[in-house]
Amino acid sequence: MEHKLKTYKKGEEFDYSYALGASPTIELLKNRPEDCFQVIFSPSYDDKDDKIKKLCGKYKIPCEENQKIINILSPKENCYAIGAFKKRSQTVDKNKSHVVLDNPSDMGNLGTIMRSCAGFGIQDIAIIGNGADAYNPKTIRASMGAFFHVNVECFADIRDYLKVYGERETYTFMLNAEYNLAELQSADGVGVYSLIFGNEASGLNYDVYKNVGKSVVIKHSSNIDSLNLPIAVSIALFWFTK
Amino acid sequence: MEHKLKTYKKGEEFDYSYALGASPTIELLKNRPEDCFQVIFSPSYDDKDDKIKKLCGKYKIPCEENQKIINILSPKENCYAIGAFKKRSQTVDKNKSHVVLDNPSDMGNLGTIMRSCAGFGIQDIAIIGNGADAYNPKTIRASMGAFFHVNVECFADIRDYLKVYGERETYTFMLNAEYNLAELQSADGVGVYSLIFGNEASGLNYDVYKNVGKSVVIKHSSNIDSLNLPIAVSIALFWFTK
Repeated sequence: MEHKLKTYKKGEEFDYSYALGASPTIELLKNRPEDCFQVIFSPSYDDKDDKIKKLCGKYKIPCEENQKIINILSPKENCYAIGAFKKRSQTVDKNKSHVVLDNPSDMGNLGTIMRSCAGFGIQDIAIIGNGADAYNPKTIRASMGAFFHVNVECFADIRDYLKVYGERETYTFMLNAEYNLAELQSADGVGVYSLIFGNEASGLNYDVYKNVGKSVVIKHSSNIDSLNLPIAVSIALFWFTK
Repeated sequence: MEHKLKTYKKGEEFDYSYALGASPTIELLKNRPEDCFQVIFSPSYDDKDDKIKKLCGKYKIPCEENQKIINILSPKENCYAIGAFKKRSQTVDKNKSHVVLDNPSDMGNLGTIMRSCAGFGIQDIAIIGNGADAYNPKTIRASMGAFFHVNVECFADIRDYLKVYGERETYTFMLNAEYNLAELQSADGVGVYSLIFGNEASGLNYDVYKNVGKSVVIKHSSNIDSLNLPIAVSIALFWFTK
């Protein structure tokens, strides 16, 4: 597959994206080699044991030394390798628990959440709305390569998600909630469940969610308005999977 | 106090710093008015109820509309107010529990940790080494103003910290640990304690810490190398304060 690599832009016409950095590129090659169609590395990259080259050889992926392309595709310094990969259509697994993010807006947060999801073993992530782009190289970079360990399905509206997954055990995280996380039993025996979190600034819309599942709060002092979103998600993941 | 405000630089010669943004500036004015010596706001700032102006009036702090200074001091867009404040010498409270960060390197992480500390009520933070600058406006911005709710004391070396606080209950967070956080009792009855975390990339140095306190791990799958630092700190805070 020959490809002229362009700077990533969000949108349907862009059917591929990039793993920026050696470590995300290795995660890509190890976990999704069938999606990777080109690897670029920097002449100054010290590839211990020729890991990237060997993986590219194994899966017959074109692999080229080219600092110029790296400078174009990765505005940050310290990027020694880039893996270009086709986006794939993913769906969350109906037999597994999900993290649901309603309109997240920050790609760094989204990547950090993917990392925690991969770490705590809830790898199915539903993203509602058209906010932070799960495929943006910034998201993938913030995930430290965990992007290639999770399944991300996008839904235009939470109602579309609930139409399919509305019957399972559902927990909605909001400040004005019925349950305190620290008093909830962990998820033993619950079966599959969904943990739903709102936007960084606005949270979940109470009117939309008031009849959806159990509302849960992670209690904190009034010295802060709210917890950082990836932190709230990760504390919930820790609690439910411990 | 008349002051020509300059772009912030790390170092002892810089004895002041900035709260960038309206919400951190309000936190500064509410919690540390005695440290604030000047407030700048943008002509396009819509100050509901004149909150900032009223606080400046109350504490007799000079307050000036000046977009040019904002553009110089805050390279990011969407900064509508800046509070300039003198650094103060702080010490952690010996009668309270501490979060100890050994050589954190990222200011965004440091700010996010401050936010969680303020949220979970452990407001005394010891920073070891000369890594991320606690006073950098980026740290303060990432803290969402929680900077003005915490006490930060810097130590050159962990040994200096342990000389003073080595007798209390101490938990060192590392992958190769004796205890699993989820199996530890929460902190009821422990008295004051210190939670110690290492650098983002290198963690805690086992040789330095092998005889210090109890080592604790937050278990995660092998799909990730480690949890993001603020996430590890926040999960521990949640667990110990729940």
